[in-house]
Amino acid sequence: MNEYSIGVDLGGTNLRAAAIDQSGKMLDKIAVDTNLAAGPDAVLSHMVEAIKELRDRFGQDSLTGVGVGVPGFILFDEGIIVGANNLPQFEHYPMRDEIERRLGSRVLLENDANAAALGEKWIGAGRDVDDLVLLTLGTGIGGGIIMGGRVVRGKQGMAGELGHMTVIPNGNPCGCGNTGCLEKHASATAISVMARLVGLGSNLTSEDVYNLAVGGDEKAKAVFRSMGEALGNALASLVNIFNFPLFLLSGGPLPAWDFFSPAMFGELERRSFTYRNAPTRVERAALGNEAGLYGAAYLPFQEKL
Amino acid sequence: MNEYSIGVDLGGTNLRAAAIDQSGKMLDKIAVDTNLAAGPDAVLSHMVEAIKELRDRFGQDSLTGVGVGVPGFILFDEGIIVGANNLPQFEHYPMRDEIERRLGSRVLLENDANAAALGEKWIGAGRDVDDLVLLTLGTGIGGGIIMGGRVVRGKQGMAGELGHMTVIPNGNPCGCGNTGCLEKHASATAISVMARLVGLGSNLTSEDVYNLAVGGDEKAKAVFRSMGEALGNALASLVNIFNFPLFLLSGGPLPAWDFFSPAMFGELERRSFTYRNAPTRVERAALGNEAGLYGAAYLPFQEKL
Repeated sequence: MNEYSIGVDLGGTNLRAAAIDQSGKMLDKIAVDTNLAAGPDAVLSHMVEAIKELRDRFGQDSLTGVGVGVPGFILFDEGIIVGANNLPQFEHYPMRDEIERRLGSRVLLENDANAAALGEKWIGAGRDVDDLVLLTLGTGIGGGIIMGGRVVRGKQGMAGELGHMTVIPNGNPCGCGNTGCLEKHASATAISVMARLVGLGSNLTSEDVYNLAVGGDEKAKAVFRSMGEALGNALASLVNIFNFPLFLLSGGPLPAWDFFSPAMFGELERRSFTYRNAPTRVERAALGNEAGLYGAAYLPFQEKL
Repeated sequence: MNEYSIGVDLGGTNLRAAAIDQSGKMLDKIAVDTNLAAGPDAVLSHMVEAIKELRDRFGQDSLTGVGVGVPGFILFDEGIIVGANNLPQFEHYPMRDEIERRLGSRVLLENDANAAALGEKWIGAGRDVDDLVLLTLGTGIGGGIIMGGRVVRGKQGMAGELGHMTVIPNGNPCGCGNTGCLEKHASATAISVMARLVGLGSNLTSEDVYNLAVGGDEKAKAVFRSMGEALGNALASLVNIFNFPLFLLSGGPLPAWDFFSPAMFGELERRSFTYRNAPTRVERAALGNEAGLYGAAYLPFQEKL
């Protein structure tokens, strides 16, 4: 049988594992709740069980390796998460080594947005390019940079933290210590917070705000304009920095594309000479929330090459 | 005799060419005024004369190639400058091909800040790393990104335009069409402009403002604090994006390091989780305004490797 690998996506609410072959075909997938309250050991046990189940099903011999995508700043060489706001229980936890010990297989630990960017490059919206940037809009904003087909990790593996680029120097405070981080002005959470600030309601999701905008609500539309401006500001700097052919967006707020993208493209046009002069695509990612699973599974294939 | 190459740095005021051997030893250098008023053809004639003089002196046979650093956005594959605010006469001029035609040798055209970054990596402050970012503070601010020892050029060769990162969304207008570009708040020109705005005088150079600060002038000190904050803001985003081990600064305002760097490091500390958690050096470049000559000369060696 074909070589395959197992990709894992550990999120704050869901833990998913998938067996994916070298052609990018998903052979099987397991999804369970992430029971964070039970502590790191229990979460890792669930993860290892899911991986073992897939490994038993598709065979140890043809398993190339295991890739695990997790939120937070990853020290790649050490396989440790730091600054994991969504998974505080795992702060400084030796996650990779612990999974390897329990599993008896080599494991690669990667930031979830980096994994998603790699997935999009492998079999998603970035198949036709070697260089791209992905922004994942969720609770926060993750970033992944692919150059020459590989994840840009930087010295410690912490590169690509694009959600913490400053877009408004004196903007909203962020858990990272900064003010005006992109993710405090353009994430799904930021949309919800802005909706509250304009009096639309205190517990609206970004989807609720989208539905209001569809219904013609001017305040909801203004929220998406603000969000689009913040995105356009960050993208303009990223285009100036990288001159890449492709910038991708993914995440919950994407259905509101028609509401936020005019402001985003307006800022890009105005703020980036490079954008106006070099063909640059800014598009929706193709793999949705499975991008991270694909990218995590691709890591062992790529490291082997 | 050893292989050598010829590096050229074409600036708005000076045109310099140097023969440099593979060990990084400068064999000889020629410097003339850049007579822009005479037009592109005359400037190229002077450049080609200088290159030929060096080539006659050190021999055609051991010449590896010619590298030319120029300000502006470079379309690398086409060898054309666009958006050359300091050399408007060369806008869309087929510079590389024209030099090659007159010289009968292969020529590589590179953005001057990219060349300077490569020079620092080769034999300057970045000798011990493979990944670095250089910001050159002058009339504007140039940027060069070195990853894996090579210039990051992007799709069209326009990557690294770090002076046009937005640091203050509604800040000073820039010739690129944006407002709040880093170079409008932290270049030598910006220091001069801020000095005027606080009433220090209308024709002060950044060196004059530095001398006032040394003399204890609080307004001059405040100018450098503003400049340092803008730099720190941009560097924080760059550290978050790249997680590189080294970020270098060069240019006329560098003697004022003690006046602007406290504000710069303060912003970096506050705005970048990565800076606080990953060893990151922000330092002065080592080669001064010869970095671009060394980097331009290194290009033919590197392309040959």
